[in-house]
Amino acid sequence: MNNVRIGLIGAGWMGKAHTTAFHNAKMIFGDDVPIFEVIADNNEEQAKTMQEVLGYNRYTTDWKEVCADPNVDLVDVATPNCMHYEMVKYALENGKHVFCEKPLSISAEQSRELADLAAAKGVVNYCGFSNIMNPANAYVRDLVATGKLGRIMRVHATYDQDMLLDPSLPITWRHINKLAGSGALGDLCSHLLSVSQMICGDMEEVNAVSSIVIPERPKFAGSDELQKVENDDVITFLVKYKNGAIGDFSSSRVSTGRKNYFYYEIQGTEGSVVYNLERMCEVQVYFKEDADKDSGRDCGFRTVLLNPQHEGFKWFQPAGGIAIAFDDMKTLQAHALMQAMNGKEYICDFEMGAKVDGIIGAVVRSLQTRQWEKC
Amino acid sequence: MNNVRIGLIGAGWMGKAHTTAFHNAKMIFGDDVPIFEVIADNNEEQAKTMQEVLGYNRYTTDWKEVCADPNVDLVDVATPNCMHYEMVKYALENGKHVFCEKPLSISAEQSRELADLAAAKGVVNYCGFSNIMNPANAYVRDLVATGKLGRIMRVHATYDQDMLLDPSLPITWRHINKLAGSGALGDLCSHLLSVSQMICGDMEEVNAVSSIVIPERPKFAGSDELQKVENDDVITFLVKYKNGAIGDFSSSRVSTGRKNYFYYEIQGTEGSVVYNLERMCEVQVYFKEDADKDSGRDCGFRTVLLNPQHEGFKWFQPAGGIAIAFDDMKTLQAHALMQAMNGKEYICDFEMGAKVDGIIGAVVRSLQTRQWEKC
Amino acid sequence: MNNVRIGLIGAGWMGKAHTTAFHNAKMIFGDDVPIFEVIADNNEEQAKTMQEVLGYNRYTTDWKEVCADPNVDLVDVATPNCMHYEMVKYALENGKHVFCEKPLSISAEQSRELADLAAAKGVVNYCGFSNIMNPANAYVRDLVATGKLGRIMRVHATYDQDMLLDPSLPITWRHINKLAGSGALGDLCSHLLSVSQMICGDMEEVNAVSSIVIPERPKFAGSDELQKVENDDVITFLVKYKNGAIGDFSSSRVSTGRKNYFYYEIQGTEGSVVYNLERMCEVQVYFKEDADKDSGRDCGFRTVLLNPQHEGFKWFQPAGGIAIAFDDMKTLQAHALMQAMNGKEYICDFEMGAKVDGIIGAVVRSLQTRQWEKC
Amino acid sequence: MNNVRIGLIGAGWMGKAHTTAFHNAKMIFGDDVPIFEVIADNNEEQAKTMQEVLGYNRYTTDWKEVCADPNVDLVDVATPNCMHYEMVKYALENGKHVFCEKPLSISAEQSRELADLAAAKGVVNYCGFSNIMNPANAYVRDLVATGKLGRIMRVHATYDQDMLLDPSLPITWRHINKLAGSGALGDLCSHLLSVSQMICGDMEEVNAVSSIVIPERPKFAGSDELQKVENDDVITFLVKYKNGAIGDFSSSRVSTGRKNYFYYEIQGTEGSVVYNLERMCEVQVYFKEDADKDSGRDCGFRTVLLNPQHEGFKWFQPAGGIAIAFDDMKTLQAHALMQAMNGKEYICDFEMGAKVDGIIGAVVRSLQTRQWEKC
Repeated sequence: MNNVRIGLIGAGWMGKAHTTAFHNAKMIFGDDVPIFEVIADNNEEQAKTMQEVLGYNRYTTDWKEVCADPNVDLVDVATPNCMHYEMVKYALENGKHVFCEKPLSISAEQSRELADLAAAKGVVNYCGFSNIMNPANAYVRDLVATGKLGRIMRVHATYDQDMLLDPSLPITWRHINKLAGSGALGDLCSHLLSVSQMICGDMEEVNAVSSIVIPERPKFAGSDELQKVENDDVITFLVKYKNGAIGDFSSSRVSTGRKNYFYYEIQGTEGSVVYNLERMCEVQVYFKEDADKDSGRDCGFRTVLLNPQHEGFKWFQPAGGIAIAFDDMKTLQAHALMQAMNGKEYICDFEMGAKVDGIIGAVVRSLQTRQWEKC
Repeated sequence: MNNVRIGLIGAGWMGKAHTTAFHNAKMIFGDDVPIFEVIADNNEEQAKTMQEVLGYNRYTTDWKEVCADPNVDLVDVATPNCMHYEMVKYALENGKHVFCEKPLSISAEQSRELADLAAAKGVVNYCGFSNIMNPANAYVRDLVATGKLGRIMRVHATYDQDMLLDPSLPITWRHINKLAGSGALGDLCSHLLSVSQMICGDMEEVNAVSSIVIPERPKFAGSDELQKVENDDVITFLVKYKNGAIGDFSSSRVSTGRKNYFYYEIQGTEGSVVYNLERMCEVQVYFKEDADKDSGRDCGFRTVLLNPQHEGFKWFQPAGGIAIAFDDMKTLQAHALMQAMNGKEYICDFEMGAKVDGIIGAVVRSLQTRQWEKC
Repeated sequence: MNNVRIGLIGAGWMGKAHTTAFHNAKMIFGDDVPIFEVIADNNEEQAKTMQEVLGYNRYTTDWKEVCADPNVDLVDVATPNCMHYEMVKYALENGKHVFCEKPLSISAEQSRELADLAAAKGVVNYCGFSNIMNPANAYVRDLVATGKLGRIMRVHATYDQDMLLDPSLPITWRHINKLAGSGALGDLCSHLLSVSQMICGDMEEVNAVSSIVIPERPKFAGSDELQKVENDDVITFLVKYKNGAIGDFSSSRVSTGRKNYFYYEIQGTEGSVVYNLERMCEVQVYFKEDADKDSGRDCGFRTVLLNPQHEGFKWFQPAGGIAIAFDDMKTLQAHALMQAMNGKEYICDFEMGAKVDGIIGAVVRSLQTRQWEKC
Repeated sequence: MNNVRIGLIGAGWMGKAHTTAFHNAKMIFGDDVPIFEVIADNNEEQAKTMQEVLGYNRYTTDWKEVCADPNVDLVDVATPNCMHYEMVKYALENGKHVFCEKPLSISAEQSRELADLAAAKGVVNYCGFSNIMNPANAYVRDLVATGKLGRIMRVHATYDQDMLLDPSLPITWRHINKLAGSGALGDLCSHLLSVSQMICGDMEEVNAVSSIVIPERPKFAGSDELQKVENDDVITFLVKYKNGAIGDFSSSRVSTGRKNYFYYEIQGTEGSVVYNLERMCEVQVYFKEDADKDSGRDCGFRTVLLNPQHEGFKWFQPAGGIAIAFDDMKTLQAHALMQAMNGKEYICDFEMGAKVDGIIGAVVRSLQTRQWEKC
C-alpha cells in the first residue's frame, strides 16, 4: 500500500468533504493509505477543531508552511475560489503534488499559468471536478470514445438550481466578481464544461447571453441595505467544438423548480444519450441500429440503470439498480488522485481545469463584446 | 365498396360515438360505406333529435322493429348494459349481424348463451372492447405471439380512476348490481381482461378481494337521503392462466390521483413490456438479448413510441411520435367490424366477450366463497 | 349555423388534412357549415380525383379562378411553401378571407407585406400553425397570462426529429433554399416560434449557429449523383425577448432517436412548465408556492394530464387522462378559423405568421453576419 | 459520546457491511463510538482476515463466546438466515442487546418466540430491515401518520429483480426451504412487508399464489446434474389490513428487465404516493386538495426530490436533488441502533421482524391450503 501524506489548506465544508473522501477511498479500495499530516486555516479556532474532528496530526494558521513541509506529499487546496491561484502556485513552486478543488482559479489566464507550471514541474496536478468520476459520465465517455454514438453532431447541456431564487437571500461571494469570476457560469456550468471536455473534447468558440434576475440583494440576512449582484443569474451560450459539433450550454441559479438539474443530451450519427444527475443512476441511450431492425418497430431510448459494467460502480454496489450517491464520485476522485501519485493515469488534471476556465473566460468576454470568442 | 346498413339501438352518448366511428372509418379507410338506416330510442324526443344530428334515415321508439327490419344488416346495441342481453338475443334470432358495446351482458351465463347463439347463427358478432384495437396493445400481442418475450411468466394489471372519489356524487346505475353486475370490476377492469384475453389467452381460476370505500351515496345530486352502494369501489384478484402464468388484476374507481390509469406489465422469459394508457403512444419494452451483450452494460427498457410499424397506426399518422387518440381505437373498431361483414377475420367476437364475462363471474363468485373459482 | 364557402388551392396531403379538419369541426362543434366549393391543382388528374374523394363541388387547374370566384368566401392555400406569397397576395387583393398553411411565405419581407395587406383589407387572415390550438399550449399560455408563473426569466425550446438521418434519402424541396427559405429552422423550429410568440410575446434579437451534417444527398432515390444540401440540418440560436427573458431555441432534422420531440421549458419567478409533444397529453408544472409550505417538503413538478379544464380539450373527451390526438389541434384550428369569419377573435393571424417569419429571417441573417440580429 | 462494544457473528459480506455502517454512523453523526470488540466465524481463516481488515480487537471461531463475553454490549448477528434463531436466542439469554440482520428467523414461530423473549429481557432488539430508514419511506410514513393521505384504501407493492433469470445459475441456499424458508417471498418481498408494517400497520389475512419458473438448476456452476428448486420464483398475494385497506403484494427473482424494482403505491382518500427504489431519491405524491382548486386544472402527481426536510436526508446532503445511496440507509440504521442503546426510541424491533415473518408464514400456509390465512 501506498502512503500519501496530505497537507490540507482550508478547514471548511470542502476540506471536510475531501478528508472524508480520502478515508472512504482507503476503506473501499484498500490501495492507498492517506496520512493526514497537517491542516491549515487562517482561523485558528477552526483549524484546531477540525484537526481533532478530522484526525490530522497537527494544525497551522500559515498555509505557506503546509506547502513547504517536507512531510507533506500532497497539498490539498480547499479554500475559497479566489485564493486558489496563489496557493496552488506556491505549492507547485515547492515541488508538491497538488489537488485543487474546482475551479483551478477565477481567471483563464491564471489557470493557464498554473497548468503550464504544473506540467513543467512534472508533479501530480489534480483539479476537483467531481462529476468526472461519476460512473454515468464515464459510461457516456466510453460510448463516445468507442464510436458507439458515431460522429457527435450536437450537445445540449444545462445545470439548473433554484437555491438562489429567493430575493431575500443576502449577497455572498458568489455574487461578487473579484471573488467568483462569474455567476452561475463558473459555479454550476463549469461542471458541465468539465464533463463536455472529457467526452467531446475542445471547443473552438462561444457566443453568450446572460441575465441578472435579482439585481440587488440584502448586504446580509435581514438587512434593508441592498448590494448590487455583479454576475449572471442565468447564462446561455452557443458553442462550436473543434470536432465540428455545435451546441448550447446554460445554467441558472434561479431556476424555479429545479434542484440539481445537471442535464445533458449528446446526439451522434449512430446514437444519442440523455443524462440527468437528479436521476443519478440512470442513463437514457438510443442506438440507431435498434431502429434499423424491423423498420424501427422496436426502437426507443433505453433506460440503462448503472451497474457493475459501468466504470467505478462495482466498488459501491454488487448489482444494477442499487443507488450510489453523489459523494461516491468524490471517493472515486480521491482514489484516482492517490493512484495518480502512484503513477496511474488520470483525467482531470490542471490542463483540463485550465481548458474549462478558458471556456469560461471566452464566455465572459463574449458577454462584453456580444461576439463569438475563441476559447 | 361494401355497404353496411346500420340499425342503432340507443341514441345516447355511446350511440353517437359508434356513429362517429363508422363515419370516420369510411373517411379514413374508404373500404366500406355505412348506411345509417334507423335509430331507436324509447325516448322519442331523443330518438328524433339524434336521427337528425347523426343523419339516420328514420327513427323509431321500438327497438324490436330495428331487429326485424329487412333493410338493416347490422344491429348496433348501444343501450345501458342491463339491456344488452335481451336485445342482442332478439337481433341474433332475427339473423342479424350484431355489434354489442361492452359488456356483452351483465352475467357470465347470459353472455355464454349469446356467444353460443351467435356461433350457431353464423353471423358477425362483435363485442365493443375498444382497447383491443389500440395499436399499442396490438404491438404487445404481436411481441407475445411471435415469441419475442419468450414464455409468459407473470401479468400485473390495474385500471384506476378517481372519478367517483367524491362522496357527494350520487348513486348511479354503476352502483346497483342488477343494472351493472359489478362495480369497478365490470366497468373498468373488464377492459384489462379483454386485452389479457387477446394477448395471454384463457385464465384457469381467480381469487378475489374487494372493498366499498364509500358505502352510501346521495339518492340524487344534492339529496340528503343516502342509498347503499352495492358493489366494489376497489377490486383485486389473483389469476392463474392456462399457460402457467400467474398474475394479479385490480381496478379502483376511487383511486386518488389516477385519471385513466390503464396499466399493465407482462413479464416473459425473453422480455417484458409495460404499458400505461395515460401515455397512450408509448410502450416500454425490454429484451433480454440486450442484456446478453457486453454483460448487460447497455440494457434497459426501451421507450418505444408508436409508429407506422405498429398495426393500425399508419391510418392516422405518417410517422412515429405523433399522437393518436383514444377515439382512434373506436374508428379502427368500426372498420374491423365492417370488414368482418365483408368476410375478414376479427378478434373481439362474442366468444371473447363471453370469456371476459366468465372471468368477471368467477371473480364475483370468489368474493362470496372466499375461494379460488374456475373461470 | 354559419356557412363557409371554401376554395382550396392545393390538392395534396395538406389540402386533404385541411378538408378533413373542416369536416370534423362541423361534426364536433356544430357551429359552422363548411361548403366545399372548389378545389384547384395544376395537376388536373389530381384535382379531379381529390374533388371526388374530398367532396368539392367542382375543380379547376387555375388557382386564380378560385381567388376570383364570387361563390368562395375563404381561400385556403395549401400549396408548397414557395407559392404561398403569390397566392395569398392575389386572394387578399380579391378581398377574400384567407387561410394560409404555415409558413406564411419563405421570407420575412414577403410575410410582412402579406400581414400588412391583410390588415388593410380587413379580412380574416389565418396562418396555419396548428400547435397554437393544442390544449397543452393553451394551458401554458393561460398560466403565463394570469401571472401564475410570475415574471418569465428564461425559455429553452427544441424541436428534434430523426426523419432525415439516413444519408441515402434524396434531396427534396426542404434542402433547397429558394423552395424552403431555410432547413430545420423554417420546417420545424417555426412551430416552436409560433408557440413562443403566443405565450411569451415578441423577441428583440437573435444570435445563431447551424450545421449541415449531411452536406450532399442523392439527386433522387437510389441515384449515385449527389446534390448539395443548402440549409441547416441543425440550428441553435440565442434569443432576447422584449420582456427581458432570455433563452435558446434549437431544431434538428437528424436528431438520432428523436421522433417528434417538440420540447420546451419556461421558467418564471413563480413557477415553471415543461412540455414535450411526444407526451402530448401531459404538462409538467411547478409552482413556487408549493415549495413555500413545509420548507419545501412536498414540492415538485406536477404531472398534469390534460382534462376538460384545459381550453379545447372538452370537445374531444369528457375526462382527464384520455388521449386526444395531434389531428385534434387541426380540428380546433378549423373551428377557430370558421368562427373568426363569424366575428370571433383569433390568435394565429398573419401578423403572428409575419412575426415568426421575421424571427426566422433574423436567424438566417445572423448565420451570415455571425452577429446578434434584430427580429 | 456513547461507547458501543460490538461482537459480530459472521465475517462475510453482511458482517462487513454492518461494520462499515457503524464506522460511517460515527463519522457522520458523531453521537456514538462503536468499539469493535470481537468477530466470530466458524472459518478461522476468514475470521482472522476480517478481524484485521475490519479492525476488530480479536477473533474467535466460537460464536457462543461472543454472546457470553462481558466486554460485548451488542451482539450483531450477520450469519446465514437459518442460523439466526439459535444465535439470537442465545445472545438474548445472555442478556445482550441484539442486532439481527433480516430476517429474524426463517419461521413465524421462531421469530415470535424471539420477539417475546427480547421483550421479556428488556434489551435493545433491532432487526435489520434497512429500507425502514430510507428517507423516502420515512417521508411516506409521515404523510400517512399525519393524515395527509387520508384513510388508506389500497396498497400495491412489488419487488422484482432478474438476477436469477439465467437457468444456468446453480442452486444456492435461496432455493432450499430449510435454509431460506421461502423464495422471493422471504428474500425480497419481506423488505416491502417491513415498510408496509411501518406505514400501514398490521395485516389481517392473506391469500397467495406462486410459481417456480425454473424448476431445476445445476447442483453447482457448470454441473450437468440438476437439483430441484423448492420455493417461489414468483409470489403474489392479496392482503387485508386491520385498518380496512386491501392490497396486493408480489415479488419475482426472475423478472426480466427489472434490476432493483422495489415499487409501491399507496392510495388514500386524500392523497396517494408512488415510490420506486430504482429512483431512490424521488417520491411521486398526489394531494386531492390540489384537484379541488380550479376544478382540477393544475392537479397531478408531484415529483418530490428528497431533500433535508425528509428525515435522515440532511446528514448526507445539504440540498434537495443530490443523490444519496442505498448504503446510507444502513448508516442511518447503525446510528438508530446505537442511539437505541442510549435510550432513544426505534422502529424496527424484533416485534416488527416477527410480524413480517408472521405474514410470510401465513402466505406460505395459504400456498398450501389455497385459502385465506390469518397473519
